[in-house]
Amino acid sequence: MTYAVGIDFGTESARALLVDCEDGTEVAVEVHAYESGVIDEQLDGVPLEPEWALQDPRDYVSSLQHAVPKLLAEAGVPADSIAGIGIDFTSCTMLPTLADGRPLCFVDELRGEPHAWVKLWKHHAAQSEADRINAVAGERGEPWLQRYGGRYSSEWFFSKALQILDEAPEVYARADRLLEAADWIVWQLTGIETRNMCTAGYKAMWSKRDGFPDRDFFAALDPRFADVVDEKMSRALAPLGGRAGGLCERAAAWTGLLPGTPVAVANVDAHVSVPAVGVTGPGRFVAIMGTSTCDVLLGADLAPVDGMCGVVEDGVLPGLYGYEAGQSAVGDIFAWFVEQVGDTHSALAADAARLRPGESGLLALDWWNGNRSVLVDADLRGLIVGLTLATRPPEIYRALIEATAFGTRVIVESFERAGVPVDGIVACGGLPDRNPLLMQIYADVCGREIEVASSAQAPALGAAMFGAVAAGVHETIVDAVHAMAAPPQVTYVPDPVHFETYDALYREYLRLHDLFGRGGDDVMRNLKALQRSTPIAVS
Amino acid sequence: MTYAVGIDFGTESARALLVDCEDGTEVAVEVHAYESGVIDEQLDGVPLEPEWALQDPRDYVSSLQHAVPKLLAEAGVPADSIAGIGIDFTSCTMLPTLADGRPLCFVDELRGEPHAWVKLWKHHAAQSEADRINAVAGERGEPWLQRYGGRYSSEWFFSKALQILDEAPEVYARADRLLEAADWIVWQLTGIETRNMCTAGYKAMWSKRDGFPDRDFFAALDPRFADVVDEKMSRALAPLGGRAGGLCERAAAWTGLLPGTPVAVANVDAHVSVPAVGVTGPGRFVAIMGTSTCDVLLGADLAPVDGMCGVVEDGVLPGLYGYEAGQSAVGDIFAWFVEQVGDTHSALAADAARLRPGESGLLALDWWNGNRSVLVDADLRGLIVGLTLATRPPEIYRALIEATAFGTRVIVESFERAGVPVDGIVACGGLPDRNPLLMQIYADVCGREIEVASSAQAPALGAAMFGAVAAGVHETIVDAVHAMAAPPQVTYVPDPVHFETYDALYREYLRLHDLFGRGGDDVMRNLKALQRSTPIAVS
Repeated sequence: MTYAVGIDFGTESARALLVDCEDGTEVAVEVHAYESGVIDEQLDGVPLEPEWALQDPRDYVSSLQHAVPKLLAEAGVPADSIAGIGIDFTSCTMLPTLADGRPLCFVDELRGEPHAWVKLWKHHAAQSEADRINAVAGERGEPWLQRYGGRYSSEWFFSKALQILDEAPEVYARADRLLEAADWIVWQLTGIETRNMCTAGYKAMWSKRDGFPDRDFFAALDPRFADVVDEKMSRALAPLGGRAGGLCERAAAWTGLLPGTPVAVANVDAHVSVPAVGVTGPGRFVAIMGTSTCDVLLGADLAPVDGMCGVVEDGVLPGLYGYEAGQSAVGDIFAWFVEQVGDTHSALAADAARLRPGESGLLALDWWNGNRSVLVDADLRGLIVGLTLATRPPEIYRALIEATAFGTRVIVESFERAGVPVDGIVACGGLPDRNPLLMQIYADVCGREIEVASSAQAPALGAAMFGAVAAGVHETIVDAVHAMAAPPQVTYVPDPVHFETYDALYREYLRLHDLFGRGGDDVMRNLKALQRSTPIAVS
Repeated sequence: MTYAVGIDFGTESARALLVDCEDGTEVAVEVHAYESGVIDEQLDGVPLEPEWALQDPRDYVSSLQHAVPKLLAEAGVPADSIAGIGIDFTSCTMLPTLADGRPLCFVDELRGEPHAWVKLWKHHAAQSEADRINAVAGERGEPWLQRYGGRYSSEWFFSKALQILDEAPEVYARADRLLEAADWIVWQLTGIETRNMCTAGYKAMWSKRDGFPDRDFFAALDPRFADVVDEKMSRALAPLGGRAGGLCERAAAWTGLLPGTPVAVANVDAHVSVPAVGVTGPGRFVAIMGTSTCDVLLGADLAPVDGMCGVVEDGVLPGLYGYEAGQSAVGDIFAWFVEQVGDTHSALAADAARLRPGESGLLALDWWNGNRSVLVDADLRGLIVGLTLATRPPEIYRALIEATAFGTRVIVESFERAGVPVDGIVACGGLPDRNPLLMQIYADVCGREIEVASSAQAPALGAAMFGAVAAGVHETIVDAVHAMAAPPQVTYVPDPVHFETYDALYREYLRLHDLFGRGGDDVMRNLKALQRSTPIAVS
């Protein structure tokens, strides 16, 4: 038997999966929770500004040290039966390091400096840098901008890098390398700095045809930023499906795997899920639903899609354009609400399931963490309208689910309007399995069937597929999909009566969406400005 | 010593107060909770429609039977030292009765009929009748309409009466009398049907100069409604400060008071609070703050005020115009929120007090129970904007308080714009004593000092004052005020820095207020229409 290990580095934990390379059987899975989790309140006792979200790279290494040995023990397979390793990571999750890959936050005199740590994907404090990037790119007519739906996000690589330069120029100066955590972990596994095309394309303005933007563009942002690519990054980018190197001695000791075991080029959790759910061609919209949702759609041609996150040639599968969109909070919103009311998901969902569409009279805008697609604005905020003295928690819970479903429909329609066909929807990630009500509402809101992937571990499975390709067990990722992916497990079929009611509610959602999201009413922005400027009372 | 008894019939309970007529000393108080409370979910097991709110008249009688004897016992005073009795009631709280005053819901074959019961002030199911009244009045150019701020409310008398006719014509036909519960309880006390000018003026289109609207107007609403006044009401209306009669034998047995004890003409809880807090002239805005808020302001002249509830000559004190406005949910909103999150008022208030204005980034529209002033629209709904994953319950709690304060400022400014001066604000009712944070926020939002009345029992004290006048202990209500009212206990002074931030937030509130409240965006109305029309799934 030949196995591959896929390791999915998520927001709160990493999970390692052992998969049979022949038929995709998932033999064992092991989850390791990060000790520091998301660092968003304080760093060593010093409060962080709002919108910050950091991580500790030790947690990534610790995941390798704990999850992989346990995985092998649990599966009862010897290290020499592991053909290859693949990893995927959240993105854009980036960090500054020394030339040898040592994170700046490991340097004693820098550990108290927040900018020396990993900036997690949901670090939202670089909005002013993103605004500057968009303004300069707009003025200069930068051609790459349309590949980002016309707006470069505060979550992306150069917004975060520029924030380091703006706010901590000494940290920026000390950083020999700026890179995605995905590539950093591959570096730790192989001892070789290897950067992947996927994150470069989706987060760092790169494309296969044009490379990175000109030096002039970066200089226009800040003269000290002119040579960021050549000084701290790399123009050598490895294609997906490639082999980054063999497992180094140190990482072999961490994991219990054999030195030299092939390690795949790094991938991103969302994008790697596409092959995992069996999608190898255009038309099937893959929604990776968890704390947030990433949507990936393959297309044969390049089209500018209003408000998408990015489109990258070969960014998901070779020979196709991979389109990415997303919603910056989904499961996070439901978890937030559950925490506020002190109830459980299952109790709220059971009561919410008994409600008819429209029955509560509630409508929400799902912008608890800003809006990634199609408005690309981290300053937007959540809204609930229709509250009465008779409103009860299950009604709000359902309205929040509906709001995220409306958000998905906006994205699907945006692709279709731009001429990128959507023939079907496949859901995977942590949410679909846990919440059938949610999937039925998505089907009813979108008026389309929604298939749920059979693997509950899509990213780790996809990573393992790439590990199998890096090992040469399968020649291409498409071959790996044919061998290792299972057909969808469940299909949710829309109820036509519910669809009709939701269609009317969706019109209301769209009106509020445009009113608050497209500048018809600036209340959210003004509230945020007031929030930042309120004088601190002397007490 | 000479005493008066004031009985305040509230939403959930009645409270009886024994007061020294000479100096206003509050000797004893006794509260009796209504057994059925607010009947808004089901009547004898049959579910009520949304927006319904009924009461059982037995609870009013039961309050007399329990609270008054206990009050006398607690105070240790003999029945012959009670000079007079006054009552006040919520309004418009109305019921249909037989000719002898027997409520229709006491008639066996009608007890299952919701329309036979008392419609509580917050019964909001007569909006379509109110819409019809406003449309017909507008077409006919009815002059009384401007005394109701240009819109007659779904809460008022003829909206509720017309709903009975619309939905239960057989109940309407059986009703010999339609009257305010305030007048019904005075009828029970004295044995004589006596209607007061205050409710007739504020709720039933009556004025001292013009009487009721013409028969033609009522006929235009429905031919069967043409003679509602002459058939089921009365054109004989008693002025405030008058004596309705002496306590009848039956009521004397209920209460332990002496037969013949003078009983004052009925009053309304809000209006009777004005003398209780020591206000006898124009300029001081009295806010009676509880589950909802009623605002009463005296003026020397008649002015049309946009969106006020009503203005009545002699409606509060003789010789002055009494203006009424209000907010249909205040304490109810905070109680709703406390229930959702399962915390306590005191814990939430303590945490909310540590927040600076604007710090949460939240803003709410306080329309959980529609909007009484200045929009007069029961179909409006609550809204919260600015929610994020970091939002915590004390922030929402504070935003809800702020929203009700903004609502008060809208009302104060509406009076000033109409030329009715506001020189000061006096707060009374259940909320001000219990929640100092709330009072400080109101002062900071309005940018004015707010005095809190010294009596925690303002309505009952006002009722007792009228009881003393009915008994002839004081010649006029103004004399009673001079003898019996105490000066305000606490004054909240606005913080100028907070006022400035709140002023900016108020601009945002006003924009949302006009957007959602004045038809710029119909989302609330559309949601409500959808809510009513959603098909019931077969399960």
